[in-house]
Amino acid sequence: MTSDFRAFYFGRAVMVTGGLGFIGSNLARQLVALGADVLIVDSLIPDYGGNLFNIAGIEPCVRVNVADVRQESTMNYLVRGRDVIFNLAGQVSHVDSMRDPYTDLEINCRGQLSLLEACRKYNPGVKVVFAGTRQVYGKPDSLPVSEQHLVRPTDVNGINKAAGENYHLLYNNVFGIRACSLRLTNVYGPRQLVKHDRQGFIGWFTRLAVEDREIEIYGDGSQLRDFVYVDDVADAFLRAGASDVCNGDVFNVGGDEPISHRDLVNLLLGVAGTGRVRFVEWPLDKKRIDIGSFYADSRKFHAAVGWQPRVTLRDGLSASVDFYREHLAHYLDNAGDMPAGRG
Amino acid sequence: MTSDFRAFYFGRAVMVTGGLGFIGSNLARQLVALGADVLIVDSLIPDYGGNLFNIAGIEPCVRVNVADVRQESTMNYLVRGRDVIFNLAGQVSHVDSMRDPYTDLEINCRGQLSLLEACRKYNPGVKVVFAGTRQVYGKPDSLPVSEQHLVRPTDVNGINKAAGENYHLLYNNVFGIRACSLRLTNVYGPRQLVKHDRQGFIGWFTRLAVEDREIEIYGDGSQLRDFVYVDDVADAFLRAGASDVCNGDVFNVGGDEPISHRDLVNLLLGVAGTGRVRFVEWPLDKKRIDIGSFYADSRKFHAAVGWQPRVTLRDGLSASVDFYREHLAHYLDNAGDMPAGRG
Repeated sequence: MTSDFRAFYFGRAVMVTGGLGFIGSNLARQLVALGADVLIVDSLIPDYGGNLFNIAGIEPCVRVNVADVRQESTMNYLVRGRDVIFNLAGQVSHVDSMRDPYTDLEINCRGQLSLLEACRKYNPGVKVVFAGTRQVYGKPDSLPVSEQHLVRPTDVNGINKAAGENYHLLYNNVFGIRACSLRLTNVYGPRQLVKHDRQGFIGWFTRLAVEDREIEIYGDGSQLRDFVYVDDVADAFLRAGASDVCNGDVFNVGGDEPISHRDLVNLLLGVAGTGRVRFVEWPLDKKRIDIGSFYADSRKFHAAVGWQPRVTLRDGLSASVDFYREHLAHYLDNAGDMPAGRG
Repeated sequence: MTSDFRAFYFGRAVMVTGGLGFIGSNLARQLVALGADVLIVDSLIPDYGGNLFNIAGIEPCVRVNVADVRQESTMNYLVRGRDVIFNLAGQVSHVDSMRDPYTDLEINCRGQLSLLEACRKYNPGVKVVFAGTRQVYGKPDSLPVSEQHLVRPTDVNGINKAAGENYHLLYNNVFGIRACSLRLTNVYGPRQLVKHDRQGFIGWFTRLAVEDREIEIYGDGSQLRDFVYVDDVADAFLRAGASDVCNGDVFNVGGDEPISHRDLVNLLLGVAGTGRVRFVEWPLDKKRIDIGSFYADSRKFHAAVGWQPRVTLRDGLSASVDFYREHLAHYLDNAGDMPAGRG
């Protein structure tokens, strides 16, 4: 399993839903490098993370099909002939899911059913790797959180992502559509959406540091998180897609050691050499869905396919800062989306 | 808590979604007897269990509003002024959910969001008791199954019911809409849908016994289940609705001792004095979503509100048989719905 999972993708027909987004595009880049036949499907819904600049340099090597996973007939067509589907399309903002639960439901539940039904009818031999989330666990009973922890999500997004994940396991178990789910923790790195702060704080913080602005930490910043660099996450998807050991199961994919928000920001500011920090009170809407400290136990996935994170937090933050320093303009095209009263 | 929870309902404005169905109508009867102001909301979708005969005798004492929980504007209107909502509306057939996952999603996820959003906007002081299901657990790791068991549903219905339940807990925790969920195991008794066999086997078996027909048991009938009589379940809802101890939590509501399918059928045939049994192979579509033996540990709910089942299986089956002997014609109005090749 050290390198044969990479050889597996040579000439392989793959599809990446959400492939113009943060993780999807970084995965697509690795797939292109491995010689795969890459079909990117993305809705390019504004504010969701899809960005054509994310595939700058690999455009000639991929096919991009703009489509929404909720569109059943389109999915019925697109899934045909694909060997592996990396299913990363989704609404990912917890805050947005609380403001508009119906849209989150449509994308994260109905859209997943559309894709799986399409596979069942038109491509039952496919392998599907679903981008799950640690959000399904909610506020942890104990740390680190393994896959044996109860699923008890605390926001609409977590509830719907849990349903979407369960559909994948069900289609594996009942209909034989080989599928598994990777429950990602806090992923960071180049090509993340940074034009607003509703898709996780690390991308937003990196932008603020690069822009030499003030980073706000809620409370005392003592709560812990684990962070995993996007190239390591792409590697996790590649391993899961190539291995039938993972079928019908869920795996945590997280960083190797937890760090507090406070220490993370200090590290980021040190790496960037710009920006500053200010501690503020928790906003009520965020406090209500906060889960305190969280970090995952990813040993199950390591045992299954040999994966482990390779990029240190310092190196990953450094690469992120360098990327946004060079390319930030491509991630700000709707400057009006910047939330009022921040920064 | 011995009787004050019953006094609580005198003059109280309650709403029962799915109130023309099996459990809803039995609950509505108890509420009428306690002097509550009862609004029944039911979609009367054919095949789902709603039946006007279920409220025979109490029609003058209840208000019936035919409506679908998916209809947001209707729910916005109906929830106003209600003190307690017993939320039993749902698609309950596991088999149907596998054939048509989208409809199950719309009713069991979107419909629940509609109701909860209506409460959030127009009646935030209401108390909501949700009819959950043991189906969310899937195939158990160990028996009896407590609320600490992982939620790992094996069919679309179980996945969507888990999401619907989680929405209730979320609206309790985040928006202060007091809500809890009762995870019902196998409920039986008068007024259950028996015109087809897709809503659980016990009603169907009772009908076959009453009609002196053959009951088919899949496999050797050794798998265990716990059964709970509908009046005991109605009592559970009444207790949960009157108690704030339950808010934001889930509780198993099951029978007090497990019995095998085989012994259950023998008991039923003995009580009825008619019918017979035949052992057959498992049909593939049912075997794929079967979960083996299952019985619940309901001690948490007992500890919270003092509930325990009071009707023995023999007495409950006897009451069911008597009921269907007298009223079966009212439960067969679409005889064409009877599945081919059974009975």
